[in-house]
Amino acid sequence: MTLTAPDPTETATERVIPRFVSVDDHIIEPPQVWQDRLPAKYKAIGPRVERLRVANLQFNGMQYSFDIVDDGSDEGKFADFWCYEDLKIPMRRIIAAVGFPPEERTLLPVTYEEMRKGCWDQTARLADMDANHTEASLCFPTFPRFCGQTFLEAKDRELALLCVQAYNDWMVEEWCGGAGAGRLVPLVIIPLWDARLAAAEIHRNAARGVRAVCFSEIPSFLDLPSIHSGEWEPFFQACAETNTVINMHIGSSARMPATSPDAPAGVQATLSFNHAMGSLADWLYSGILVRHPTLKLAYSEGQMGWIPYALERADSVWREFRGWAFDKEAVPEPPSFYFRRQVYACFFRDNFGLKNLHDIGVDNVTFETDYPHSDSTWPDTKDIFTDMVRDLPDEDVYKIARGNAIGMLGLDLD
Amino acid sequence: MTLTAPDPTETATERVIPRFVSVDDHIIEPPQVWQDRLPAKYKAIGPRVERLRVANLQFNGMQYSFDIVDDGSDEGKFADFWCYEDLKIPMRRIIAAVGFPPEERTLLPVTYEEMRKGCWDQTARLADMDANHTEASLCFPTFPRFCGQTFLEAKDRELALLCVQAYNDWMVEEWCGGAGAGRLVPLVIIPLWDARLAAAEIHRNAARGVRAVCFSEIPSFLDLPSIHSGEWEPFFQACAETNTVINMHIGSSARMPATSPDAPAGVQATLSFNHAMGSLADWLYSGILVRHPTLKLAYSEGQMGWIPYALERADSVWREFRGWAFDKEAVPEPPSFYFRRQVYACFFRDNFGLKNLHDIGVDNVTFETDYPHSDSTWPDTKDIFTDMVRDLPDEDVYKIARGNAIGMLGLDLD
Repeated sequence: MTLTAPDPTETATERVIPRFVSVDDHIIEPPQVWQDRLPAKYKAIGPRVERLRVANLQFNGMQYSFDIVDDGSDEGKFADFWCYEDLKIPMRRIIAAVGFPPEERTLLPVTYEEMRKGCWDQTARLADMDANHTEASLCFPTFPRFCGQTFLEAKDRELALLCVQAYNDWMVEEWCGGAGAGRLVPLVIIPLWDARLAAAEIHRNAARGVRAVCFSEIPSFLDLPSIHSGEWEPFFQACAETNTVINMHIGSSARMPATSPDAPAGVQATLSFNHAMGSLADWLYSGILVRHPTLKLAYSEGQMGWIPYALERADSVWREFRGWAFDKEAVPEPPSFYFRRQVYACFFRDNFGLKNLHDIGVDNVTFETDYPHSDSTWPDTKDIFTDMVRDLPDEDVYKIARGNAIGMLGLDLD
Repeated sequence: MTLTAPDPTETATERVIPRFVSVDDHIIEPPQVWQDRLPAKYKAIGPRVERLRVANLQFNGMQYSFDIVDDGSDEGKFADFWCYEDLKIPMRRIIAAVGFPPEERTLLPVTYEEMRKGCWDQTARLADMDANHTEASLCFPTFPRFCGQTFLEAKDRELALLCVQAYNDWMVEEWCGGAGAGRLVPLVIIPLWDARLAAAEIHRNAARGVRAVCFSEIPSFLDLPSIHSGEWEPFFQACAETNTVINMHIGSSARMPATSPDAPAGVQATLSFNHAMGSLADWLYSGILVRHPTLKLAYSEGQMGWIPYALERADSVWREFRGWAFDKEAVPEPPSFYFRRQVYACFFRDNFGLKNLHDIGVDNVTFETDYPHSDSTWPDTKDIFTDMVRDLPDEDVYKIARGNAIGMLGLDLD
């Protein structure tokens, strides 16, 4: 409410905001990604889309349940399902939430046509990026999950490796090719079950210019060796040698940080950054960033307002718990030293983090639009961002809107 | 480094810091707590202390292993063990760390005599409080664990209930009686396996002036019903009726927030506040603080620098995820509203939190000395506190040093 009339001599000059380089968006894979690439013998059990009728949709305040019906009735609605080995996973409104008001962003099963086309179509995506002041975007997978867990859990490892490679080929050649070249930035997945195969996949993709890979925040939560085990060394080494950034999206440790099965989903949504925080502590005390001083980590959708306290605590433990809590030779500097040198925070809405930007590190912060998920600020990202950075100087705004992301990913944009 | 000579006209006036009311310290129970109170038939299996010889002490960088030897040799050293049913738990240096330099705060098994006497003796404790500018102290149990998990896990529930009551009787009559009255503030435990028995224990203790109880940050991590289940209602009701503050110490959800078994302990120590954060999200979305508007929660040793971001995120979820993530009628106001009304943060070292005190809430912050644990700032608490609050006005310093704790616990100190 304005209590006084606006000053007519005041010029409403709009602040110039650099176009965004978003380090965390999502692609809903179009139906042909794997069918176009798998050998004939695998097409029938490899990933494919089936349109099925669902009925008896029920929402219990947390989850939708439904039945798949094929009795010829016209009850319920159609939805598109990803099918692979024994899996049947419906698309849901929540993973394609852009364009819908908050009340309609639900777990409802949907078809491709019920999503905004930019979710899965390159031309439409580029137009949606233009409409949202976004020059470039790094997109995470959907059906493979945030770091390729779907293929880790598959039965047939030969097929799974082909699926990983097919996804990466599609990512590089189609999603980030043609009109998308230079604006859609390739982000690949690895066969999580074998660090040597993973290293080979890093080298195969680095050779065609890829500089970003998905990884799990906390691999031990996927029943994989921890980052402390030494088992991942070939993969970390390959990333360091090729300047491939390790991108760890929230949720990539399989578990989301729920407190109990009967907790409202708002608890988990509030805590969505929690395993990013666990992962950061893990990495800072692992010695890996000491052994590989050029390796870079990005905590996708992890936000940042929690980081200054976490670093202060990590440094305090480093000083006060020297008698028992870690190997002093493996971590010769305080943990915050390695954060500032090698780690990037990624935020979408975080006023408290921006207020404390210099306690995080103005060179360590990147921005994301999270298109097309529930947390996305699309199509209002520019307005929301402009408001959030109102107290920051232009130099800092440039860094967080795009400069740091360009440096992190080695992009040829400025 | 001083580049100019000090101004001889400048008077070095020491700032007046109010004496502390510490809301989180620890008692190492003296050997007779249960033996003095249990009926004869239970003395032999009830909690008791045995002095045993330990040898082959080995430290693997994370943990000490040892053998208990009774072959008459004088190998190794003596240590005192708490024995109860099948348990044999050694005292360790880390739980009685005050007075030792950081390098010597280890997991070494020790005897009572190898601890500072204030760990278990009231007179010595009051002297150590005097030496540390501390007027009053709320002490958590050690052998029962932070909310009485030891008795929850026991085989004999009849004995376990007697143990809970015996601890509370000792806490009220001995630890907080005599010379300790008014300075050592009673904090009781409950039989965690039965919310009605728990409510009865709250009423029994409230009748003799007790205003604080230990509870689990996340009871479902103890395989107990979650706070959302409705099962705890008699206990919550009893606390609300009697103005009994629910104190949830870090680690009271049994699991500490480790990422993997092979992670250095520094990871877990860095993340020590993590389940306090999960618990806070749980409570803010539970509706319990709405149903019981006078109920008060304290996050003991949870620190606070992480709180502004967690509240901003919780409020953002409340606005943006209305379509699916919680019951809008159960949480009619944004989560931060209930935090400010009913929740207390408890800190020991937290420069970032203090810098952002007003984003937490100057009326929501209490202080602790964590005597005699590794995080304790004893005997330098006053100096460390004075330095931490150097930029705060006296009014805020009074509130966090003692005023808020006095209000929270209803103490008769000012």
